[in-house]
Amino acid sequence: MRQVYLNGQYLPETEAKVSIFDRGFVFGDAVYEVTAVLEGKLIDFAGHLARLHRSLSELDMPFSMDDASLLAVHRELLSLNQVDEGLVYLQVTRGAADRDFLFPAADTPNTIVLFTQKKKFSDKTPEQLAMRVITLEDQRWLRCDIKTVQLLYSSMAKNIAKKAGADDAWLVRDGLITEGSSSNAYIVTADGAIVTRGISNLILSGITRAAVLECARELGLRLEERAFDVAEAKAAKEAFITSATTFVSPVVQIDDAAIGDGKPGPVAARLREIYLARSRQAAI
Amino acid sequence: MRQVYLNGQYLPETEAKVSIFDRGFVFGDAVYEVTAVLEGKLIDFAGHLARLHRSLSELDMPFSMDDASLLAVHRELLSLNQVDEGLVYLQVTRGAADRDFLFPAADTPNTIVLFTQKKKFSDKTPEQLAMRVITLEDQRWLRCDIKTVQLLYSSMAKNIAKKAGADDAWLVRDGLITEGSSSNAYIVTADGAIVTRGISNLILSGITRAAVLECARELGLRLEERAFDVAEAKAAKEAFITSATTFVSPVVQIDDAAIGDGKPGPVAARLREIYLARSRQAAI
Repeated sequence: MRQVYLNGQYLPETEAKVSIFDRGFVFGDAVYEVTAVLEGKLIDFAGHLARLHRSLSELDMPFSMDDASLLAVHRELLSLNQVDEGLVYLQVTRGAADRDFLFPAADTPNTIVLFTQKKKFSDKTPEQLAMRVITLEDQRWLRCDIKTVQLLYSSMAKNIAKKAGADDAWLVRDGLITEGSSSNAYIVTADGAIVTRGISNLILSGITRAAVLECARELGLRLEERAFDVAEAKAAKEAFITSATTFVSPVVQIDDAAIGDGKPGPVAARLREIYLARSRQAAI
Repeated sequence: MRQVYLNGQYLPETEAKVSIFDRGFVFGDAVYEVTAVLEGKLIDFAGHLARLHRSLSELDMPFSMDDASLLAVHRELLSLNQVDEGLVYLQVTRGAADRDFLFPAADTPNTIVLFTQKKKFSDKTPEQLAMRVITLEDQRWLRCDIKTVQLLYSSMAKNIAKKAGADDAWLVRDGLITEGSSSNAYIVTADGAIVTRGISNLILSGITRAAVLECARELGLRLEERAFDVAEAKAAKEAFITSATTFVSPVVQIDDAAIGDGKPGPVAARLREIYLARSRQAAI
């Protein structure tokens, strides 16, 4: 049985339980990170930790576990569960207190949860990765830059996409694409520029996004961090997403429109290859 | 020690725990209701149950517990905890499953949690009830009509209000007041009309709101269900909120503006009195 981590203890997954008064349970008052694992090692771990600290800070959520301990728990779980490829999920909540919208005392102990999932995702061909997405109104809150567990709309969006026979949804606010339901969204224009939404409160500042943009810069590709609408996306030469566990994955259809020639494009394939090669090298 | 209800069992509050994989904990995939209790009886219970079913339905969340059983659990908790005045909190989640944005199998058992809180709130004078509010940008998601546990922004708003020396926040979207952080918002215009935002995806359809509007109608007061901006609110003759546990409570200051003469107004006081009298009579 999978072992998970909860507040200092390693437990079988069926025994890991939190109070019904946990603020993560009654208020969505919790943040999380997902770190991909390749060959038993953590990808972009420093980036995920940095974002975790930013999320905590934006929510004025006290947190006392140090980074070295967090890393040690990640590694211990990989070892206990013999995870060669997959992910580690980390969630931190403001802890348990009788229900009150006002934050509890600052010394209320956090709830800290980590668990692993085994997934095989590094050996797929572009054809196997090819995604079809639908566009949906972005109905999320206006602090999508904070990685909270308030994920119900993203979950609803993925279910709507599935019902529509698609793989995922791209979200649209005020006519402009923000991001995927759990990924950043990109297009490649006719003249070869990679376009993705600029960082703001409306999207998550993806750790994989930052790494992939860095790869693109080093390749000398043209980058435009700006908003784009659904029409521009449908007319693009290529489209793709990035996220911690999809790395770079091609999008071949948006709503009813085939993107480019309807096959995975070369820019996404090249970026995926380089990102993966680097990540394997830099993994810890 | 307080007894709570969890999935068929009555437990001491410290023993009531849910899986770390509960979707209420990792996705905010849960709905709730709060029913006020006066003289040991439930206020507007039928309305809360009806809204619970609507929330579940909007989220395609299967739910199998029948209304009679829900009522029985509410009453048993009031009895076990000897609650004369206070509230019963009910939360239903989509249950526990390994983390995946896609909904789990439809036969995944819900997590059903109920607990009580004792509060004394019926015997306060208008002066004791008088609230000062600040206005804040409404950053919540666009399905505020569904009563989910994604309450982080409301919680943040109340904390910001407290830091500013106020009692609560009124939220403003596109320049127009939507509602309070956990209440509906009202003003009384110079010519005596009661104005409150019309029902839409941007506000919660308050159970107390419906009951109080019905009281107002029977008193022959003029009602306008429409949007109003901050300037109109600050210039109002009177302002107040309604919610399940504040009933009708006067607002005497919005940001730096005193409302009317800065004292609780007669319309709110009269509505509170009538609403409470009726609620006591109709309580079950």
